[in-house]
Amino acid sequence: MTAPLRLGIAGLGTVGTGVVRIIQDKADLLAARCGHRIEISAVSARSRAKDRGVDLSAYAWEDDPVALARRDDVDIFVELMGGSDGPAKAATEAALAAGKDVVTANKALLAHHGQALARAAEESGRTIRFEAAVAGGIPVVKALTEGLAGNGMTRIMGVMNGTCNYILTRMQSAGLPYEEVFAEADALGFLEADPELDVGGIDAGHKLALLAATAFGAQVDFDAVELQGIGEITIEDIHAAADMGYRIKLLGVAQMTDRGLEQRMSPCLVPASSPLGQLEGGTNMVVLEGDAVEQIVLRGPGAGEGPTASAVMGDVMDLARGIRTPIFGQPAATLEKRPAAASATPAPYYLRFSLLDKPGALAKVASTLGDAGISINRMRQYGHADSSAPVLIVTHKTARSDLKSAIEAMEELGVLVGNPVALRIEDV
Amino acid sequence: MTAPLRLGIAGLGTVGTGVVRIIQDKADLLAARCGHRIEISAVSARSRAKDRGVDLSAYAWEDDPVALARRDDVDIFVELMGGSDGPAKAATEAALAAGKDVVTANKALLAHHGQALARAAEESGRTIRFEAAVAGGIPVVKALTEGLAGNGMTRIMGVMNGTCNYILTRMQSAGLPYEEVFAEADALGFLEADPELDVGGIDAGHKLALLAATAFGAQVDFDAVELQGIGEITIEDIHAAADMGYRIKLLGVAQMTDRGLEQRMSPCLVPASSPLGQLEGGTNMVVLEGDAVEQIVLRGPGAGEGPTASAVMGDVMDLARGIRTPIFGQPAATLEKRPAAASATPAPYYLRFSLLDKPGALAKVASTLGDAGISINRMRQYGHADSSAPVLIVTHKTARSDLKSAIEAMEELGVLVGNPVALRIEDV
Repeated sequence: MTAPLRLGIAGLGTVGTGVVRIIQDKADLLAARCGHRIEISAVSARSRAKDRGVDLSAYAWEDDPVALARRDDVDIFVELMGGSDGPAKAATEAALAAGKDVVTANKALLAHHGQALARAAEESGRTIRFEAAVAGGIPVVKALTEGLAGNGMTRIMGVMNGTCNYILTRMQSAGLPYEEVFAEADALGFLEADPELDVGGIDAGHKLALLAATAFGAQVDFDAVELQGIGEITIEDIHAAADMGYRIKLLGVAQMTDRGLEQRMSPCLVPASSPLGQLEGGTNMVVLEGDAVEQIVLRGPGAGEGPTASAVMGDVMDLARGIRTPIFGQPAATLEKRPAAASATPAPYYLRFSLLDKPGALAKVASTLGDAGISINRMRQYGHADSSAPVLIVTHKTARSDLKSAIEAMEELGVLVGNPVALRIEDV
Repeated sequence: MTAPLRLGIAGLGTVGTGVVRIIQDKADLLAARCGHRIEISAVSARSRAKDRGVDLSAYAWEDDPVALARRDDVDIFVELMGGSDGPAKAATEAALAAGKDVVTANKALLAHHGQALARAAEESGRTIRFEAAVAGGIPVVKALTEGLAGNGMTRIMGVMNGTCNYILTRMQSAGLPYEEVFAEADALGFLEADPELDVGGIDAGHKLALLAATAFGAQVDFDAVELQGIGEITIEDIHAAADMGYRIKLLGVAQMTDRGLEQRMSPCLVPASSPLGQLEGGTNMVVLEGDAVEQIVLRGPGAGEGPTASAVMGDVMDLARGIRTPIFGQPAATLEKRPAAASATPAPYYLRFSLLDKPGALAKVASTLGDAGISINRMRQYGHADSSAPVLIVTHKTARSDLKSAIEAMEELGVLVGNPVALRIEDV
């Protein structure tokens, strides 16, 4: 048994408390596995007085996370504060400069500053590990950077925001409109302080950007992620999708194409019978596709004290064992600035709109689609009580730019009520 | 860029050829990721003349895998021959004694000699990695030993023999009897030379023993795995299970109980709507449950050139990066000899039997079950054309020993036709 490994933990919310609990409860098991005692030297959080249900009396307290990060008795700085800038960034930089390794759950920080931080870490001969930043308890960063290191990755997909998946599956199971389920989720404390981080797809987009960089040897480029939230999904869309054998998921997709790196986080239709389609509630799922391994699907809790603390501890244990995989799978200097794909890979689309109930309206829309080169796979017109008729169309594979032009032309026809909704149908 | 890492590959079947192909096709990508060129120094196989579709001319040839394992120009011995003893064992021992690391896909070897080989490796300061031995392309050993290293594992489950899952799902989808689908699988080349390795559950049992050792800090104990094959599963069982919302899977379960370590590989009923229930064809699935992470489900191809070579390369890349996790998650000397649980955790059971078509027969069986303390959750008697009536019973949770006694008592009644079939219903 060699010297203990000493942590400084900044942030004692749910996850931080969970990490403290594991280290206190499993000291012997952890030491047997990694050959070192894992100890906590010091902690830092917003409120010192708050009762967190764990005994912190043996640890030094720092009000300032930057001071914590620089302490001589800290080997690993564990950053669980969150936020893309401010104290999290300052403390992470201070830790690296002081020669500490960093374990973080902070997806926003890495999505915005990942490349610079990776370089800073490598210059100090240190590393940053971020398993807890992506898909909660699922060891997906490890699977991608290490387990599948013999693969050229071809595509990654994921449902990585449990709150959005909760909202979408609850709408379906309870038959409730978006606004009502959103209010429920809020009351249950599922939403971030700024709900747009969840329902706008930003949080999931951060995670996708990190996985995409790792999978494709690219510099993290969150700004290139095409973001579309779930706020426009109606209960009618949910029902119509189900009626045609699909489910609607906030799905992240990243793939290298000859047009560049495609990164999308948007509501998509997936087959109801697929693993992604069957994913209910707050559970996360990541699909990794490589040229050798074909397809690996990983599923697990996307948040919560135990699962996220499990991910943090996986990183801590790796560092204790001397495992230092390059931060995004290869040295930061070799990560390329991949151009963003100007347009998404063609796909079938789901198109919902309401038609004025007058003769010839549908024919006009159909011929507009035909003129734009978009062919129709399936169409349904539903019975209706008012003066507008709901229509659903599933197109054959089409370029999104063609679909966009067609929708603009449809809107000129004067036969639509409201705005059409177009959702991609992803081949999963 | 430091010195190249040199492999000696013994065994050039599907997997060995796949490894050669990856190393030839992805030299630059692999080097960028791990910081070393990955090279092949020498290979060995049964037939030198065979055309494998890859150019082997740059590699030295050894007829004897032991000689290959000892070569000075080999850093990692890659054992892809298979077999629990004989050349695979001799060559692995020789490699470790000569100070080489070993990467293997050989579940039989490690299931029988894992503890001794782990000790031999540690005495030489080397390691053995076996990702490819369990669940094909799924990086499950890595997830368990590294990603979830902060967890006390509570249960692991898995469908880990693709051939059995192919047979069971094909019986269901095509409505064909076992014998016919078995013959199909044989014609397709899905079966091992000794089919009992597949359909008897032995191959999957080897894998379970390796995962159980890793999960529970135990010495590998394949002899303690309760094995039951799929040969007795009839198309009637498949249909009856489906009728009650279940699927039949050859399911491995390992869990620590206060009665010892339970390891079972047997046909079980699982809910049709669960991830395990929905697993079709040759795909594998492993479920890992830990006290922090709750439940992680991993799914992927269980065999084949690309997926298994991907797992081998994951291990090679880890070694190239200096990652040397203890073989079964902690040093061999600290692995405990866990006593085998004398009896399985109580569970509901599915019970199928045929009754002589005479008054009072069902009442006799029902009271026999009642006398044994087994209560009935659901019962179905099906219509029938001949003189015996098929009956299905789902029991409430019961000890298997009680069920066994009850079945023996039922057989004394003189009202049964043929042997009753009892299958466990696993809570997944």
